[in-house]
Amino acid sequence: MSGWLAIAGLGPGDDRLVTPEVSAALAQATDVVGYIPYVARVAPREGLVLHPSDNRVELDRARAALQMAAEGKRVVVVSSGDPGVFAMASAVFEALETRPDWQALDIRVLPGITAMLAAAAAAGAPLGHDFCCINLSDNLKPWEVIETRLRHAARADFAMAFYNPRSASRPEGFAKALAVLLQECGPERLITFARAVSTPDQRLSTVSLGEATPEMADMRTVVIVGNSATRRVGPWVYSPRSAK
Amino acid sequence: MSGWLAIAGLGPGDDRLVTPEVSAALAQATDVVGYIPYVARVAPREGLVLHPSDNRVELDRARAALQMAAEGKRVVVVSSGDPGVFAMASAVFEALETRPDWQALDIRVLPGITAMLAAAAAAGAPLGHDFCCINLSDNLKPWEVIETRLRHAARADFAMAFYNPRSASRPEGFAKALAVLLQECGPERLITFARAVSTPDQRLSTVSLGEATPEMADMRTVVIVGNSATRRVGPWVYSPRSAK
Repeated sequence: MSGWLAIAGLGPGDDRLVTPEVSAALAQATDVVGYIPYVARVAPREGLVLHPSDNRVELDRARAALQMAAEGKRVVVVSSGDPGVFAMASAVFEALETRPDWQALDIRVLPGITAMLAAAAAAGAPLGHDFCCINLSDNLKPWEVIETRLRHAARADFAMAFYNPRSASRPEGFAKALAVLLQECGPERLITFARAVSTPDQRLSTVSLGEATPEMADMRTVVIVGNSATRRVGPWVYSPRSAK
Repeated sequence: MSGWLAIAGLGPGDDRLVTPEVSAALAQATDVVGYIPYVARVAPREGLVLHPSDNRVELDRARAALQMAAEGKRVVVVSSGDPGVFAMASAVFEALETRPDWQALDIRVLPGITAMLAAAAAAGAPLGHDFCCINLSDNLKPWEVIETRLRHAARADFAMAFYNPRSASRPEGFAKALAVLLQECGPERLITFARAVSTPDQRLSTVSLGEATPEMADMRTVVIVGNSATRRVGPWVYSPRSAK
């Protein structure tokens, strides 16, 4: 039996946002690999081995998954959201780069509902016009790169979605980002904090940049900053389709 | 019986990429509203009225859907991909803005797999680092806005996903965009053309910007331009997680 590797997105949390394609891959798998809380979302069954691993060991995890696929196993690497957006797909390809003998393996990337799109849907349509998507974690890039990107994004008048806005280990980064945004976009610009979207812990709040504080975000929060035309309608926030 | 409106994303084409949440809404609907080819993806059944409409009548369609929900019907507005990304969600909120009496209606936005994420998954992980998403159609914004955004995106070193790159009515726009990108990013930058992803017509091709021609895209194509670190590994294209 020949092995394969599927890099799959479980969506933001609600099982009704897991695609049938991903469910089918999980049903055929012999092994599931991923960060502990994501593997915990996969129902155990006879014949399925779960391999939960800690955060920040993405490359080790990717290599282990590729090794199992090379040995003939049917392996699903699970991410939350979409595997191609700040998740495991890039880590698997990084691992593949060092092992040309693995490059002919049967590998598929199975898309999922990424957090910003679930957050946007819960809030209305704040990403309904051109937008950008930035990982605010400075684990893998220097702050200067983040600041440059924020300034270009503001000057392009993109709406912006931010992943990993804040963690206990770097509490100051998000405060600096908010200061840059306030300077570039002004205090009236709308900002939406969407925490744990589609789970029982979901919490949504939209304020102006002038009212925003770093404590409004944690690592389970996706932050969406509107463009200059983003506005409220009833309980919703949306970006119009047109721009002048 | 009280009516509701769901603005739902059908994903890029493959039924295995339709979320169970969207399938459930369609199963409960009395009326489905949308652009002709998207409504054609919904299976007819007893008790379900299909309302296909032409392209470029988004606001009329949104108003009709809201009116039906106000009358007590259970209405699903269908978009391909995700309804919040260059699709019907913003049009519904625009229509809602002119009718405060409709703002208390039961409205939900149901996210879907948007074309760029399906395209990225098929190609590898070109959106695995910070990126932006631009609608290249100049129906709703002037070319100058598009050009400014392209230049900021390039200088921010974002990977970029483009929707609606090219149509018969404006064949020159995409050629201009390619010229701006070539100037800003240089001829070696990778560009992926992903046509009709997840359908039987899927066609994927990655070339350098120096090799790219406008004819490589049509209105069924999503185009992804890598960032300065995006590279090939085996048959794949990916953007590394880190930046210097």
